[in-house]
Amino acid sequence: MKFGINFFPVVDPDAKTATDYYDESLGLVELAEELGFEHAQTVEHYFSPYGGYSPDPVTFLTAAAARTSRIRIATGAVIAAFTHPVKLAGKLAMLDHLSHGRLDAGFGRGFLPDEFAAFGIPIHESRARFAETVEAVRRLWTEENVVWDGEFHQFGPVTMLPRPYQAPHPPIFVASATSPESCAASGSAGHHLQVVPSVTSRETLQDNISRYRAAWRDAGHAGSPRIQIKYTAYLSENRAEALEAGETYERNYIEKMAGAIASWASTRSDQYPGYESFVDKVGAYDFAASLRDNKVLAGTPDDVTEQIATIAEWFGDDLCVSLQFNPGAMPIAQSRKAMHLFGEHVMPAFSGSRVLEGAR
Amino acid sequence: MKFGINFFPVVDPDAKTATDYYDESLGLVELAEELGFEHAQTVEHYFSPYGGYSPDPVTFLTAAAARTSRIRIATGAVIAAFTHPVKLAGKLAMLDHLSHGRLDAGFGRGFLPDEFAAFGIPIHESRARFAETVEAVRRLWTEENVVWDGEFHQFGPVTMLPRPYQAPHPPIFVASATSPESCAASGSAGHHLQVVPSVTSRETLQDNISRYRAAWRDAGHAGSPRIQIKYTAYLSENRAEALEAGETYERNYIEKMAGAIASWASTRSDQYPGYESFVDKVGAYDFAASLRDNKVLAGTPDDVTEQIATIAEWFGDDLCVSLQFNPGAMPIAQSRKAMHLFGEHVMPAFSGSRVLEGAR
Ligand SMILES: [Ca+2]
Ligand SMILES: [Ca+2]
Ligand SMILES: [Ca+2]
Ligand SMILES: [Ca+2]
Ligand SMILES: [Ca+2]
Ligand SMILES: [Ca+2]
Repeated sequence: MKFGINFFPVVDPDAKTATDYYDESLGLVELAEELGFEHAQTVEHYFSPYGGYSPDPVTFLTAAAARTSRIRIATGAVIAAFTHPVKLAGKLAMLDHLSHGRLDAGFGRGFLPDEFAAFGIPIHESRARFAETVEAVRRLWTEENVVWDGEFHQFGPVTMLPRPYQAPHPPIFVASATSPESCAASGSAGHHLQVVPSVTSRETLQDNISRYRAAWRDAGHAGSPRIQIKYTAYLSENRAEALEAGETYERNYIEKMAGAIASWASTRSDQYPGYESFVDKVGAYDFAASLRDNKVLAGTPDDVTEQIATIAEWFGDDLCVSLQFNPGAMPIAQSRKAMHLFGEHVMPAFSGSRVLEGAR
Repeated sequence: MKFGINFFPVVDPDAKTATDYYDESLGLVELAEELGFEHAQTVEHYFSPYGGYSPDPVTFLTAAAARTSRIRIATGAVIAAFTHPVKLAGKLAMLDHLSHGRLDAGFGRGFLPDEFAAFGIPIHESRARFAETVEAVRRLWTEENVVWDGEFHQFGPVTMLPRPYQAPHPPIFVASATSPESCAASGSAGHHLQVVPSVTSRETLQDNISRYRAAWRDAGHAGSPRIQIKYTAYLSENRAEALEAGETYERNYIEKMAGAIASWASTRSDQYPGYESFVDKVGAYDFAASLRDNKVLAGTPDDVTEQIATIAEWFGDDLCVSLQFNPGAMPIAQSRKAMHLFGEHVMPAFSGSRVLEGAR
């Protein structure tokens, strides 16, 4: 089992400046490298405190790459529809070189109506644009004289510069596929996977992951599929303190998400079945239930070790668990403390072993 | 008089890898900070060895910002038409924070038909898209609940995150305006200016700059307009060696430019009068004449000091001269040597004084 860190800035500017948020987060990336985390990743969102400090993940991640030398750098994810494939192929290849081959390129479909509206892109095109962009970028990375005649983009023959550092190209991750079909398609294509367990049931996610693994195997791809599974983690030697932080910042997350997705109340798309009910879920949020269901990690290092052992049982232990340690406007000292506890007391229980007896 | 460094990668991948080009260039940015240069800047271009290693200047510049603490970081420039204003406002604001307020935001119109074709944007729209994007970005940086109803983009009300570090916003530079009217318009708007003397006659550039300064003054803007004027510099204690390098790499530049603009032979736009004749100019290139006309700087430190004194006489001494020291695939040791010579023997002649007697 491996571990990474992720950044999803659900931060109101009144609570923490962007300068401080970035500086603190970059400090955590350096700490993650010291503690032996596998990767650092961040999201793409706009306008609202629900992720709005990260309108361009590549920019933050380039700074993260410049401050480190070993840890992998992951987009988690870029929203394919919002950047032209030529621009996206170019900037990601630049980051791959600047990091000397440490890029994991996660692509997502996006789901916030306000963001699609601002970019002037019909949200019902998101799936088709996602598929077209991932394939166009892959071809721009690997082929010369690319001629692209897609539904949304037409160009070529062009030969992209720079070609990526990694050969044949940086690992491609598909982010947050939520249907069994899209997970199976990702496996067939040989793409890696980024999943967010808080938005699906355990059973659905298990099914998705096993469909994904089977599709990868059936397609005969070399190597193993990589799966990054994202959680927020609250650790303290004092359990009550960890749970209180969890309750506070998870509630902040849910409230800011509610604000960002409010326009679903007036947006319907048959491409996003069930998304309208997100709004209802927010009102019914229950931290204790969320903790019981392992959708958030909180407690002492021992508690969190137990949770991760359970996650390994449910979803497999050849995963990379990607953890956010600085949710909301949490004071940075608290985040760094939690990360040290995790790195020093939780990670060792899982290193190098596929059998987790020591942790139970 | 101030000095900056600029990067225009006219590099064939066979001659230098992108990894080496970026690593070496970032080393020059660190050296520039040590030597007291004001800024580091780079361009945006695609596909061909004429700039193609820089499809996203913000990505390279974010790495440059992470490696330094004082030097200003300039886009020189982003091509406005190729990135949505929301994305551009966001990533530039991120860089402004990551650099703690060191961003100079240069916007250009672009001029290569192959690039516009790849992005699916009619090149005759470049001027209007440039104007719309600069104004949309400025409003996204400075206002809340922005409603934009432009010719090419419609969005809002949206409030961008993060807002920039610098208040009210990072300095806006208009790049390579070549007509007196566009220079005057930049001055009236209170924008700063980036110019490339190699593409205009001395008289035209003098006229453009004085129209620009007059328009700035007439509009009553506070402070002084900043003008960045770009050259490539070849220095050696051995004059013959410097001139040989100049001849070699200037010819490489001209040849690669010819390749990149070849499609002008089949592209005509009344928005770009005279651009077709670029192709003819390439065939007639004469390094000695270019040196005589101060369109390229080359020679001993004394020679280059003379050239810069002449530039100050022609265009004013309240300029920032932005110099490229690593053209083409020049060995990095040669670039570093030239930069040390410039920083230690040329810059001191111009520091702090508007009267350049010492240099003549
Ligand atoms: Ca607020
Ligand atoms: Ca602060
Ligand atoms: Ca136990
Ligand atoms: Ca070649
Ligand atoms: Ca090398
Ligand atoms: Ca003299």
